[in-house]
Amino acid sequence: MSSDTMEVEEEVRRIVEQVKDLHDSATAFVSSSSHEELSLRKRSSAVDASITRLHSTILEEDLQRARCMLADGDTSSFLPSKPQGRFVRMFLGPVNVRASRKDIQLKVKEEYNSYRDRTALLFLVFPAILLTLRSYVWGGCLPAFPVQLYEAWLLFLYAGLAMRENILRANGSDIRSWWLYHHYCAMAMALVSLTWEIKGQPNCVQKQKGVRLFLQWAMMQGVAMLLQNRYQRQRLYTRIALGKAKRMDVVWGETAGVDGQLWLLCPLLFTLQGFEAYVGLQLLRTALTGVVAEWQVLICGILLVVMAVGNFINTVETLMVKSRFKAKMKRSKSRAELD
Amino acid sequence: MSSDTMEVEEEVRRIVEQVKDLHDSATAFVSSSSHEELSLRKRSSAVDASITRLHSTILEEDLQRARCMLADGDTSSFLPSKPQGRFVRMFLGPVNVRASRKDIQLKVKEEYNSYRDRTALLFLVFPAILLTLRSYVWGGCLPAFPVQLYEAWLLFLYAGLAMRENILRANGSDIRSWWLYHHYCAMAMALVSLTWEIKGQPNCVQKQKGVRLFLQWAMMQGVAMLLQNRYQRQRLYTRIALGKAKRMDVVWGETAGVDGQLWLLCPLLFTLQGFEAYVGLQLLRTALTGVVAEWQVLICGILLVVMAVGNFINTVETLMVKSRFKAKMKRSKSRAELD
Repeated sequence: MSSDTMEVEEEVRRIVEQVKDLHDSATAFVSSSSHEELSLRKRSSAVDASITRLHSTILEEDLQRARCMLADGDTSSFLPSKPQGRFVRMFLGPVNVRASRKDIQLKVKEEYNSYRDRTALLFLVFPAILLTLRSYVWGGCLPAFPVQLYEAWLLFLYAGLAMRENILRANGSDIRSWWLYHHYCAMAMALVSLTWEIKGQPNCVQKQKGVRLFLQWAMMQGVAMLLQNRYQRQRLYTRIALGKAKRMDVVWGETAGVDGQLWLLCPLLFTLQGFEAYVGLQLLRTALTGVVAEWQVLICGILLVVMAVGNFINTVETLMVKSRFKAKMKRSKSRAELD
Repeated sequence: MSSDTMEVEEEVRRIVEQVKDLHDSATAFVSSSSHEELSLRKRSSAVDASITRLHSTILEEDLQRARCMLADGDTSSFLPSKPQGRFVRMFLGPVNVRASRKDIQLKVKEEYNSYRDRTALLFLVFPAILLTLRSYVWGGCLPAFPVQLYEAWLLFLYAGLAMRENILRANGSDIRSWWLYHHYCAMAMALVSLTWEIKGQPNCVQKQKGVRLFLQWAMMQGVAMLLQNRYQRQRLYTRIALGKAKRMDVVWGETAGVDGQLWLLCPLLFTLQGFEAYVGLQLLRTALTGVVAEWQVLICGILLVVMAVGNFINTVETLMVKSRFKAKMKRSKSRAELD
């Protein structure tokens, strides 16, 4: 053998040795860290269970702080998580979407917020352009293609939102499950409306009334989303601004600074829900009186009404939880002063 | 204070202590394990780079074994990964879909295979039912709803496939990027065809010729998918059957036992691609001669032809890589015998 071959063989031997070492280290690391992870998981579940048990009987500030420390720190990734939803499993399979570190979880949430910002803007601009063109260029009649493009975008948008919110839930966020159902309804509606014939018929103004109302509702939705995003973002910023040292105080402080905005947001949300129900009922009326006897109109009408009612119930419930929590806080404060 | 309150306070104090301990352990664990992970990552990248450098000059059995050990063992999760595709980021945000342990990666792959099995069956059954009903119940004319249901299912199916294959890629699988592009094209086609009017017109047989051809193609596709799945599953089983001890031999052995099936599969795949191109060209002809002057027909025709050509090129390339690899193996074996 030449010295050249010898050299190469020497290098190969060295590499094989390196790989074996590396393989052993990796195996040892994976096994030891899974061990430690398992023990942390067990301890977290146990403590979490005892907090929940005590929490149902009393409201103690220390207990609340302990809970925040558990949920906000590095321990959070070892807490028992909600099982990943069917929706995620359906599209992704059994892959784990849970971030193992708190900073990554926060990054996921931040990206979700900026995604919502971008979509809110499009929610405002896209229908506005369609309605403007309808009035000034298309002579009162929407052509099929741009509307279908808009519907396809809605389908994509709600799929992305549903996926992200499922992932946030798996990462310990407390998003209400209604919002996920809402997004599934919205996806169904987008899909159904894609198959809906909206071509310029002789009675185009009559036939496209539903679409026009829906676009107007979407514009309002855009404004509401922008406001909601501002509100929720401020909550997150408050959390971060409080710093790690006082991270546990977050739950107390988060609603304090933005109450004013909430009372601007609520009437808007209720108006929006009312308008959504109105559009839905209009569609139902059109379908049932037989002006446009397509099944798509009926289904879209039902879905819109369901979404409006669900949104209303959930907004009310959220407000009630907030005020109950405040009352409880006040009571516990005054009790502490009495002590 | 009553003894009851004292007791509760004692318990709260104990829990707070526990949480603090747990928090410290978790933080320590996360920081030490990320340290160790980083060092493993660096070592893996370095070794991987030297293997690649040497591999381009020689084909050494030992080197190949080393590479397999690196890619098949626990080390695999520390190797530099392909960046997560835009498609995944678009729907999921910046979440990490990479499994940290080899057994989970294999589970993801196994689930992907069973997903493909289930869809292949539906691919066969769904269009078969539609075509049968068309002939014997619907009098030669497909109603819109079941066809649209089928198209919506296709959209959902290809979105799921694209997502899963992106995730497999992020987990180190060597899926060709063409297949991802193929699924994006198929999604676009499903979306476009949803907006396509297929209602019974006077000249229904003429108008639905494209849909009918497409359904026939889908049935063939189902058969091909079932065969492909069997072939690929056998590869995976060979891997697992060889056991951990001989895990490195996998790359050599995997094609050996199933060559017979490959030569059954290939003609079928080429026929399928030919038929796909034929359906596409038929649609293009219909669109361009103005029998059905809808933009959807044109777009679907173009997409089908693109997919057929892409599939063909990729099948040929895969076969060429396989035969090149075999030739290389033979040469290196005879050289070893000469030595």
